[in-house]
Amino acid sequence: MAEGAVRAVVVGATGYTGAELCRLLTAHPGVALVGLVGHRTAGKPVGEVLPTLAGRLTGEVQAFDAARIARDADAVFCALPHGASAPAVDALRAEGAVVFDLSADHRLRDVDTYRAWYGEHPHPERVGEAAYGLVELHRAAIREADLIAVPGCYPTASILPLAPLLRASALDLSAPVVIDAKSGASGAGREAKPRTHFSETAEGFRAYAIAGRHRHTPEIEQELSRASGQDIRVLFSPHLVPMVRGILATSYLRPAGDLDAGGCVSLARELYEGSPSIHVMEPDGYPDTAWVRGSNRALVSYTVDARSGWIVAQCAIDNLVKGASGQAVQAMNVRFGLDEGAGLTHLATWP
Amino acid sequence: MAEGAVRAVVVGATGYTGAELCRLLTAHPGVALVGLVGHRTAGKPVGEVLPTLAGRLTGEVQAFDAARIARDADAVFCALPHGASAPAVDALRAEGAVVFDLSADHRLRDVDTYRAWYGEHPHPERVGEAAYGLVELHRAAIREADLIAVPGCYPTASILPLAPLLRASALDLSAPVVIDAKSGASGAGREAKPRTHFSETAEGFRAYAIAGRHRHTPEIEQELSRASGQDIRVLFSPHLVPMVRGILATSYLRPAGDLDAGGCVSLARELYEGSPSIHVMEPDGYPDTAWVRGSNRALVSYTVDARSGWIVAQCAIDNLVKGASGQAVQAMNVRFGLDEGAGLTHLATWP
Amino acid sequence: MAEGAVRAVVVGATGYTGAELCRLLTAHPGVALVGLVGHRTAGKPVGEVLPTLAGRLTGEVQAFDAARIARDADAVFCALPHGASAPAVDALRAEGAVVFDLSADHRLRDVDTYRAWYGEHPHPERVGEAAYGLVELHRAAIREADLIAVPGCYPTASILPLAPLLRASALDLSAPVVIDAKSGASGAGREAKPRTHFSETAEGFRAYAIAGRHRHTPEIEQELSRASGQDIRVLFSPHLVPMVRGILATSYLRPAGDLDAGGCVSLARELYEGSPSIHVMEPDGYPDTAWVRGSNRALVSYTVDARSGWIVAQCAIDNLVKGASGQAVQAMNVRFGLDEGAGLTHLATWP
Amino acid sequence: MAEGAVRAVVVGATGYTGAELCRLLTAHPGVALVGLVGHRTAGKPVGEVLPTLAGRLTGEVQAFDAARIARDADAVFCALPHGASAPAVDALRAEGAVVFDLSADHRLRDVDTYRAWYGEHPHPERVGEAAYGLVELHRAAIREADLIAVPGCYPTASILPLAPLLRASALDLSAPVVIDAKSGASGAGREAKPRTHFSETAEGFRAYAIAGRHRHTPEIEQELSRASGQDIRVLFSPHLVPMVRGILATSYLRPAGDLDAGGCVSLARELYEGSPSIHVMEPDGYPDTAWVRGSNRALVSYTVDARSGWIVAQCAIDNLVKGASGQAVQAMNVRFGLDEGAGLTHLATWP
Repeated sequence: MAEGAVRAVVVGATGYTGAELCRLLTAHPGVALVGLVGHRTAGKPVGEVLPTLAGRLTGEVQAFDAARIARDADAVFCALPHGASAPAVDALRAEGAVVFDLSADHRLRDVDTYRAWYGEHPHPERVGEAAYGLVELHRAAIREADLIAVPGCYPTASILPLAPLLRASALDLSAPVVIDAKSGASGAGREAKPRTHFSETAEGFRAYAIAGRHRHTPEIEQELSRASGQDIRVLFSPHLVPMVRGILATSYLRPAGDLDAGGCVSLARELYEGSPSIHVMEPDGYPDTAWVRGSNRALVSYTVDARSGWIVAQCAIDNLVKGASGQAVQAMNVRFGLDEGAGLTHLATWP
Repeated sequence: MAEGAVRAVVVGATGYTGAELCRLLTAHPGVALVGLVGHRTAGKPVGEVLPTLAGRLTGEVQAFDAARIARDADAVFCALPHGASAPAVDALRAEGAVVFDLSADHRLRDVDTYRAWYGEHPHPERVGEAAYGLVELHRAAIREADLIAVPGCYPTASILPLAPLLRASALDLSAPVVIDAKSGASGAGREAKPRTHFSETAEGFRAYAIAGRHRHTPEIEQELSRASGQDIRVLFSPHLVPMVRGILATSYLRPAGDLDAGGCVSLARELYEGSPSIHVMEPDGYPDTAWVRGSNRALVSYTVDARSGWIVAQCAIDNLVKGASGQAVQAMNVRFGLDEGAGLTHLATWP
Repeated sequence: MAEGAVRAVVVGATGYTGAELCRLLTAHPGVALVGLVGHRTAGKPVGEVLPTLAGRLTGEVQAFDAARIARDADAVFCALPHGASAPAVDALRAEGAVVFDLSADHRLRDVDTYRAWYGEHPHPERVGEAAYGLVELHRAAIREADLIAVPGCYPTASILPLAPLLRASALDLSAPVVIDAKSGASGAGREAKPRTHFSETAEGFRAYAIAGRHRHTPEIEQELSRASGQDIRVLFSPHLVPMVRGILATSYLRPAGDLDAGGCVSLARELYEGSPSIHVMEPDGYPDTAWVRGSNRALVSYTVDARSGWIVAQCAIDNLVKGASGQAVQAMNVRFGLDEGAGLTHLATWP
Repeated sequence: MAEGAVRAVVVGATGYTGAELCRLLTAHPGVALVGLVGHRTAGKPVGEVLPTLAGRLTGEVQAFDAARIARDADAVFCALPHGASAPAVDALRAEGAVVFDLSADHRLRDVDTYRAWYGEHPHPERVGEAAYGLVELHRAAIREADLIAVPGCYPTASILPLAPLLRASALDLSAPVVIDAKSGASGAGREAKPRTHFSETAEGFRAYAIAGRHRHTPEIEQELSRASGQDIRVLFSPHLVPMVRGILATSYLRPAGDLDAGGCVSLARELYEGSPSIHVMEPDGYPDTAWVRGSNRALVSYTVDARSGWIVAQCAIDNLVKGASGQAVQAMNVRFGLDEGAGLTHLATWP
């Protein structure tokens, strides 16, 4: 372990975001990964639970013990399902741990909204503690927080291109903000289910939970509303792409006045200057999810429909990196005073 | 050959829509496929040019000879690229052949629009002859026509769910009609190109030619305008899905008044009653392109965003069947007085 | 229903081979599909259970009732899992039904071998009744049988190229017959399992159950032994390909004497002459599973290693068609005196 | 640039192995990537040529200038096609550069063999200079060499599991060594070609260049012969898997005496002890290419067919990493006295 390294523990190490945290943290020059915690897998060798660790990491998955984790770790990454995460986070916070929660449990700032979408919140008193971990928009809050709610994958891809326009009051909000999002199957998690069975997912394309039915809708609206100072409504429609990783969000936006693609690019570059993660492409660029696969990059692009004047904004990320585990590591870097891009600078795995 | 069978020739048999015509026509109980015509492949055994024909169809690809084709065939299917198609169609029509043109050359009814998107039309005098071959909307015209312009794949998937709403004046057209479309790679044709190279297409997702840059835009607008009686503008954005076949078009529409998903379904079922191809799903259904793969089916679905009232309309087709060759055969059935679904009733190849 | 049509019922209609039977039988000109039978799905509308049937077939999945099925149907297709199939087949046979069993329950002619691989046979007394349904090798027996054991997918692809060489005593059997087989994921069935979860199957390749551990091993050995008149041992190793449909079996064989690829081709063409399904390619051809997708074809090819003299034999099939449901229909055609290729002549869905 | 860093230049930076070198070298803590060289792309911004570099690396692709490259770089990675590589290597060596050649031009130690498979060698006098860069087998030679011939992807996956057995004289070589190999499409390179066109590669599986026709055959034989001290003949048959990255090689081997899987594992672990790259799995393990994707790992496994006693050996690698660019970096680490695993320790990108 490097002296002065941030000691990290991953809780919920056996899901996909947990596995991705292991990949990123073991390669991070300023971090020592000191423990993997699981529930059903406790006691098993780590290489049995995550095949990529076999022959690389030794030791066993540990059972959850908040006091021990808080003692061993400077930073705890919680990669549990919503509902299961809040009690674990509460226990860890009670022991004084700094927690990065990758679940949805601390993202929504309004407990009633949480209830409407997820059911009763197990620990509503913790909700106010959390900083929303979209680093480029909330750096200052993250630096001070001991509980960071790591954003969802769809919200990250949806918010990044829209925030600069909303902050500048550049959109006419009389029409709903239409976000047509497309995600690879790893966003559905590691559990085998009929609709992500290979034979029914490969060579097919479909939507799901469209028209405001997806739980990421209120999260997107919360953050867009914060960015704009107005109450934003989105018409959010996700789709499942027959690929493992990647999200492309395509948004359709009515500008408030004259705004061309170059103007959008300028607003975004101003806001995201210095980010080690976001690349705002030249006007009319086409981001490809393959160009960010395995990396913490977000490619943001704008184009304008010549006839209607509407803006089409796009954002491509790897849902497991900038959309989850990479974003968590980026937030940890900020929280612990490391270089914001530390451990996250590798290029995409392409092709 | 069955007595009384429609004798068919496929011109441009070696591309993907040509191959698909061969597949459909050889299985059609009322058709005799009497010739395959190619340019670069003339003289080669058909099984060498189309691997699925090896051991099934004998004979060679023939060179183009309008007089001979017109003599041999009752129906000629022209599956050539735009620009190359119009002269071949002209020669075939001059010999009296009934032609189903799968290219874009006779779809646009306005020569100036054609010029703006494709360049000078080689035979503008033929444009007026053509019936637009979207069977469910133009049956009567197809029955009388000797030149049928088979619709593009994106237009088919885009128009089908919108036409019933526009015919009923059910949409508020002050906002643009947003169509976010996603297609498999076979829509890009058989020629090997960098952007459909396997290693750069698999495991990635991207948009292309968005915001009114795609050539199918004016075709969609022409037909939606005909359906509505107004001048319709669409904001059309295609995307490439890492799969071979299938299109899903997702549209975002502002209703003119109160209109729920059930109301949309009723309008569509009324218009498409009796179609052997279109299945209007129950409200809030999710069509999957895998459920139409290899079949001439179109799955149409509607849902409504509870908060904004906007309609999300979806349509899934196989781009090579209902989006091209199947549609052509359906039009041929109508033109020659066969049962409209003849040769097109097989279920999708699923999984 | 066509007069004189064979009335067919599918038992176990909701799995992949059941779905494929529905696809083939509904398009078969000499068959009337008169019922779908399921256990857990009984009472549900067929279109809810098989998405491709929605809007095409009406009616509900029926519960299993041997007497009613035997009364309604001339031919019963049993697409149940092994172990569950034998009791259903026994009940149907007791009522006099002609049964095509797609499970493994009646393929092995030796009850002890069955026990060693699958456990106690529920109805060992029926084993002797069955004809092995690989049509090209057992036409005469199928014609007389009332119980046809439809071969497994791997056995079909493995046996077809080897049988002609073994019948001609053309192989040196002192080395084991090495069969390296590769299958798409639909062979693993419809049930969602971790190892066919999309995110863990796409973009990966692996072997499973190699070196004689796969249950298709004794079936392959039984049939190769019957073909050769000797006791054949195979070294069979299956692999999972990230695709939905298709099997390619590559075999490595030591010839008994001088035998070139042309000689192998001649032997195979002689044996398979008249088959509506098998296409023996020219020497050194490369069969692609994409060229048989959705069709009942089997592409067989031979090449010889110039230095060692060993033969490399290949066979490509669609595991759900010639490897299961198509083969069953072909056997039914033979059993009921229809043209052997009836309902099975459509070309592959390519691309 | 870190002080004391190895300065590296990549020649042929725009192909897939060049792109992968950029990915690995930019993340290598002991390397400074000081230049990218291309021919057709010289003068273009690097981000235009390799989309993953946009916004990450500035500067332009440089034209080839051996003197300048040799002055700028400690290590030159040559990722050119065979035939084109040898003259570039010759020019670079003449200027004193240490060269890692990823092409086939310096792998074969016998010029006549090169001529038989690739045509006249442009610089036969350099052939003797090269060390074969399979690090685990040739560490000492690599440490001393100024020209390292980086192995091909198939040879790497084929040789690794066989070398330990051959070194120990554990195989009966009277039967040919059968190697059935399966590769993702990126092995075919970046140039768009019909047979790696997405629509003809996805959802299909096929062999190519089997039975000793593939150019990697003599390379495999050379190295297996060196390992065994005997003249080895292989029956090598490659297949194309519908995935981007990964090779699985499955070999069928007759043991010389009693040898079980555990015995094979012991031999391999002894030989590969200390390798940062090779993981010899427990007996009967199933390596999955998805478990090595993006990493420099090689998973090696052995099982034995209980009835025939034959060994089935497997090896999974990422063809672009351990099969090309990662191996080159590993060899560079050895040659320049860095830790052998430096820059190569990241886990696979899974899922």
